[in-house]
Amino acid sequence: MTGRRMLVVGAHSADFVWRAAGAVATHTAAGGEALVLALSYGERGESGELWKDPDQTIENVKRIRHEEARRAAAAVGASFEAFDLGDYPLRIRDEDVDRLAGLMREYAPHVVLTHPDRDPFNPDHPVAHAAVATARQLTAGAGVASGFKTAPPSEFLVFEPHQPELCGFTPTVFVDITEVMPAKQEAMAAMGAQGYLRDYYTQRAEQRGNHARRVSGNAAIREAEAFQRLIPNVVGRL
Amino acid sequence: MTGRRMLVVGAHSADFVWRAAGAVATHTAAGGEALVLALSYGERGESGELWKDPDQTIENVKRIRHEEARRAAAAVGASFEAFDLGDYPLRIRDEDVDRLAGLMREYAPHVVLTHPDRDPFNPDHPVAHAAVATARQLTAGAGVASGFKTAPPSEFLVFEPHQPELCGFTPTVFVDITEVMPAKQEAMAAMGAQGYLRDYYTQRAEQRGNHARRVSGNAAIREAEAFQRLIPNVVGRL
Amino acid sequence: MTGRRMLVVGAHSADFVWRAAGAVATHTAAGGEALVLALSYGERGESGELWKDPDQTIENVKRIRHEEARRAAAAVGASFEAFDLGDYPLRIRDEDVDRLAGLMREYAPHVVLTHPDRDPFNPDHPVAHAAVATARQLTAGAGVASGFKTAPPSEFLVFEPHQPELCGFTPTVFVDITEVMPAKQEAMAAMGAQGYLRDYYTQRAEQRGNHARRVSGNAAIREAEAFQRLIPNVVGRL
Amino acid sequence: MTGRRMLVVGAHSADFVWRAAGAVATHTAAGGEALVLALSYGERGESGELWKDPDQTIENVKRIRHEEARRAAAAVGASFEAFDLGDYPLRIRDEDVDRLAGLMREYAPHVVLTHPDRDPFNPDHPVAHAAVATARQLTAGAGVASGFKTAPPSEFLVFEPHQPELCGFTPTVFVDITEVMPAKQEAMAAMGAQGYLRDYYTQRAEQRGNHARRVSGNAAIREAEAFQRLIPNVVGRL
Amino acid sequence: MTGRRMLVVGAHSADFVWRAAGAVATHTAAGGEALVLALSYGERGESGELWKDPDQTIENVKRIRHEEARRAAAAVGASFEAFDLGDYPLRIRDEDVDRLAGLMREYAPHVVLTHPDRDPFNPDHPVAHAAVATARQLTAGAGVASGFKTAPPSEFLVFEPHQPELCGFTPTVFVDITEVMPAKQEAMAAMGAQGYLRDYYTQRAEQRGNHARRVSGNAAIREAEAFQRLIPNVVGRL
Amino acid sequence: MTGRRMLVVGAHSADFVWRAAGAVATHTAAGGEALVLALSYGERGESGELWKDPDQTIENVKRIRHEEARRAAAAVGASFEAFDLGDYPLRIRDEDVDRLAGLMREYAPHVVLTHPDRDPFNPDHPVAHAAVATARQLTAGAGVASGFKTAPPSEFLVFEPHQPELCGFTPTVFVDITEVMPAKQEAMAAMGAQGYLRDYYTQRAEQRGNHARRVSGNAAIREAEAFQRLIPNVVGRL
Repeated sequence: MTGRRMLVVGAHSADFVWRAAGAVATHTAAGGEALVLALSYGERGESGELWKDPDQTIENVKRIRHEEARRAAAAVGASFEAFDLGDYPLRIRDEDVDRLAGLMREYAPHVVLTHPDRDPFNPDHPVAHAAVATARQLTAGAGVASGFKTAPPSEFLVFEPHQPELCGFTPTVFVDITEVMPAKQEAMAAMGAQGYLRDYYTQRAEQRGNHARRVSGNAAIREAEAFQRLIPNVVGRL
Repeated sequence: MTGRRMLVVGAHSADFVWRAAGAVATHTAAGGEALVLALSYGERGESGELWKDPDQTIENVKRIRHEEARRAAAAVGASFEAFDLGDYPLRIRDEDVDRLAGLMREYAPHVVLTHPDRDPFNPDHPVAHAAVATARQLTAGAGVASGFKTAPPSEFLVFEPHQPELCGFTPTVFVDITEVMPAKQEAMAAMGAQGYLRDYYTQRAEQRGNHARRVSGNAAIREAEAFQRLIPNVVGRL
Repeated sequence: MTGRRMLVVGAHSADFVWRAAGAVATHTAAGGEALVLALSYGERGESGELWKDPDQTIENVKRIRHEEARRAAAAVGASFEAFDLGDYPLRIRDEDVDRLAGLMREYAPHVVLTHPDRDPFNPDHPVAHAAVATARQLTAGAGVASGFKTAPPSEFLVFEPHQPELCGFTPTVFVDITEVMPAKQEAMAAMGAQGYLRDYYTQRAEQRGNHARRVSGNAAIREAEAFQRLIPNVVGRL
Repeated sequence: MTGRRMLVVGAHSADFVWRAAGAVATHTAAGGEALVLALSYGERGESGELWKDPDQTIENVKRIRHEEARRAAAAVGASFEAFDLGDYPLRIRDEDVDRLAGLMREYAPHVVLTHPDRDPFNPDHPVAHAAVATARQLTAGAGVASGFKTAPPSEFLVFEPHQPELCGFTPTVFVDITEVMPAKQEAMAAMGAQGYLRDYYTQRAEQRGNHARRVSGNAAIREAEAFQRLIPNVVGRL
Repeated sequence: MTGRRMLVVGAHSADFVWRAAGAVATHTAAGGEALVLALSYGERGESGELWKDPDQTIENVKRIRHEEARRAAAAVGASFEAFDLGDYPLRIRDEDVDRLAGLMREYAPHVVLTHPDRDPFNPDHPVAHAAVATARQLTAGAGVASGFKTAPPSEFLVFEPHQPELCGFTPTVFVDITEVMPAKQEAMAAMGAQGYLRDYYTQRAEQRGNHARRVSGNAAIREAEAFQRLIPNVVGRL
Repeated sequence: MTGRRMLVVGAHSADFVWRAAGAVATHTAAGGEALVLALSYGERGESGELWKDPDQTIENVKRIRHEEARRAAAAVGASFEAFDLGDYPLRIRDEDVDRLAGLMREYAPHVVLTHPDRDPFNPDHPVAHAAVATARQLTAGAGVASGFKTAPPSEFLVFEPHQPELCGFTPTVFVDITEVMPAKQEAMAAMGAQGYLRDYYTQRAEQRGNHARRVSGNAAIREAEAFQRLIPNVVGRL
């Protein structure tokens, strides 16, 4: 596990916390390395609390959101980076895709996590998915010798959206996060701006824990996170 | 891996060889235990070669098919059992499902493999799937305390059908069978009655090897088998 | 086309008229042979008009329905046969499937048409589909030498249900029935008991004609019927 | 609403409580009538707690389960009936479908609720679905004059299964149950044998409440239940 | 119903008439308000009749199409607005999406209707869908406090395309338009340029009326329109 | 068949060879005309072998790739054209779509072949699909009189991707290429840069031949290619 790199890309700086902080924590606890990348700060769509201050400025909102996300990432052992592309709407130009592909070529992640490709409740999440999927393909090359630098193909999974069924999300992997739940709680606590989501995603982790117990028969699981793997995995045996 | 039990259920005695013998071999090579169960001998639908002998009898066909399957299973380290329920059509009564559930309760497999639930080219494969799926559920119980003996829930996957897309089969796991390919070849060789399928499934293993290389970037993979997992798997980390 | 045999199987004696009579007529007009098989007479579910006669008997209803269907089939050049298995519900036993497979083995159709496998508005249509699909597979064998008599694999299509989208029906073939529309009208006219459906299916033929014109650019098409092919077709060139 | 009848059919006597008790309560609170029908008592699969008593008998388990379900139904204003067909496995014969159709013809429900048609975690739920769907169709007739007594077509919805995405469940209706949540809590409390599910489904109701708030913008919703409508509804305006 | 606002967005100025004029009319007849927005005039792709005049100009075609659409909208009680973005192809820039979102924020519709997201027969319809879906999300915000003005989330449905099954369209709501059919006829009559579509969509309304009768058992329905709801609706009871 | 025109559009200059060269050859052998259009040369993603030469230049790679593709096309009787839009990533501007539509309007193909709309292993294939689908619609017009020049609607099929199930590819047509397999071999041989793919696609042709034999019962088929038809075909009879 040591040396295994995980890249988590969210449309907004807080996205990774609710849906994947547990998986990140299990990964780093086992000796892996993790990088959280936020395409935007969610400074317009998800920061209404901050904007209630009449003297608020866009720079200050971004600064606060950056710091929150950095602390949340640190709580689960990850570093944090932001592209600051703007939100609501997040609009991604060709050069942004190239920059993302460049980052992937450099970081060479073993696992990539991002949003599902559909979300009727958020215009930015599918945009982020498309950028990540394309950049990941540009990084991996065509499976034949390329005329440019490539990175080995990574595992590719999407994390759970807010209303899973309406986003076409079907879990194919449950990650047992029982051991690292305190770290996820700490990461969620760092997100001052969206504190009310903590209850929702704590419940969600318990429900996915219930599902994971039922699937595995392992009564020791209390909390879990759900993911959908988009590319088959390759194993040495079942 | 030692002590891990795999159950492979086919509608006909030869089914497991083409689609799953490699996965069985990797499993037993790693110290696991495997049981192949044939619901019928395929004595009518797949034994036309044997019936060319004008003195052929149904008992003799079954005897030959049993022996072939037993040897094929042995080649990949598995034992073999048959329910002899008849083929073309395979018709499964309530008591047959109960018998299968009883076997599952006793054997308590960690992994169950069988046919997909749809196959426009074979009337018996979906019937086998339905019986296995029901028996597996009856074995596992409802996830709450039951009034009967249960076995822990098993992983549940389907193996590759002959024309995958038309059976709604989408691979979610590739098993690298490069190391055990000779054992799979030996198992296929044991199937005198359907020898011409060897080329087809040798090619198939090479193609799935190509796919698995592309997915993983692991250039050492030469042959693979494809499976579709029907129930999420539960892992400690990604 | 001469000598090419088409088998149309309906749950009830009138089903083929509305959805496939045009395709039958184009087939027989081109020199093909066609057999319409009704699994039941629809004597309970679709014959309410006849039951308004207080002295009506079940035998008489069946007799009338048989005669209507025979005349409708004749109008499009087909012969008619009935299994009289009862309707609402149509319940099919193993021996009925075997009988149907026997008929298919004997008749050796080149094309088989029946209902789609789903219909939230009719309990008998999916039952008919399942029986036809299974019998067809039992007839064709496993694609390897069998221990029993087989017929060559037939093309397999489903005809249009009453509410297509809710039955999961997606057209893949439009048959131009412009030339034979009078014969279809005559067949529909023979169905005294359900006369009001004539307008519905005349309109439907015009709409499918509109669709077929749009797809092909052939402005000469006025009426068409829609079908969904369940098995790929094999062609010498595109 | 007065005189509007709702029929809820569960495979086991407790099923309706967790997934639909709120919708039943809103229905009866508005003057509607509701009947809960249990195809079995869940006496084997879901009553393990009761079987811990070494002197337990099957009759006693059924008696207790009947009484619990009757009280739970009463808590939400519904009456309760049981067919006692056995569970794990629930096996439904033709005469059971006919009996269910007879009940539907008699009760003439305006709304029917039952399980989805797929559930990889419970062998009895899909069996119940199939029986309800068939009986409902036999009750409604073919949309033309029938030779038997019919009831008007009912609205047909499925309630939420335990692991929604894996059962192919996609919500199309959220019912706001905020006002009747105490009644649902009382109904859940009546289910002594499966008390631990109360937390799970209380959380679930809160999450669906969150979803319903997001969909509607109605901040007053606290709890909701999710349903999937299988047949379009017909409205006078949007 | 009074004060309830409906927004109908079409790629071309005539689109709303054929597929949704009835639903608009029932809405306004009940006291609601409706706005029809055309992203283009369909001046190239759907106005070939007008172009047969050798002296025709693009400005004149647009002027005629505007006037026709305005009269058609008026016939069903709606106002009409056009963005004039060009057709065949309709190409939508970021600022057009922003303009649409601005309009939605201002108008704050309770119901939004547009094209499905797929149409193999029209390049502009899916483009219109994407713009509407994105603008609607930008308008509604993320369900948490936003840093910009939002409107409450609207109901979101798509109207029936020309070849429904090939556009992945499955009806989930039938609107009974029997009472307002004369108004829809008047709206269709206002569309001089595409007069031949009147028969097609009159037939279609009758067929959907047939479907709605079958679904509801309400024999008084003669004509209906079909819609697919993309977001669950939230109700007080079933 | 004489005069029938086929247009094959690939993202990269070599794409058509592996998946459709056989279908092209059967088409031209029967007197049809065929044009292969490459949107890019695949000069970056698929030409790594050429780049091993330290003195290699982009112009030289393109020149070699052009010549290879031209010879491959000639081997199956087709002419070759290239748009040279760049690969990895292939990015298509509005004017490129217009140019493609112009070519289609001019060439007026009866059949169009291209990539499927989804491919998790290649970022350029779906981009090519989208451009072709849009251009084809712009060419065909809306099925009503247009204000611009149109070509008759063409048949539209996608050819087989490298990992079919993961691209959502389901075959609906098998083309028997047994007779022209030598020509396809010659075309593949012309592709020096990707020689190792010859084995893969030779095997694939044999497997699809196996499938086509099974579907049709025609034992003379040795090799086939698989296609998925996206638009129904219109026939005079089944």
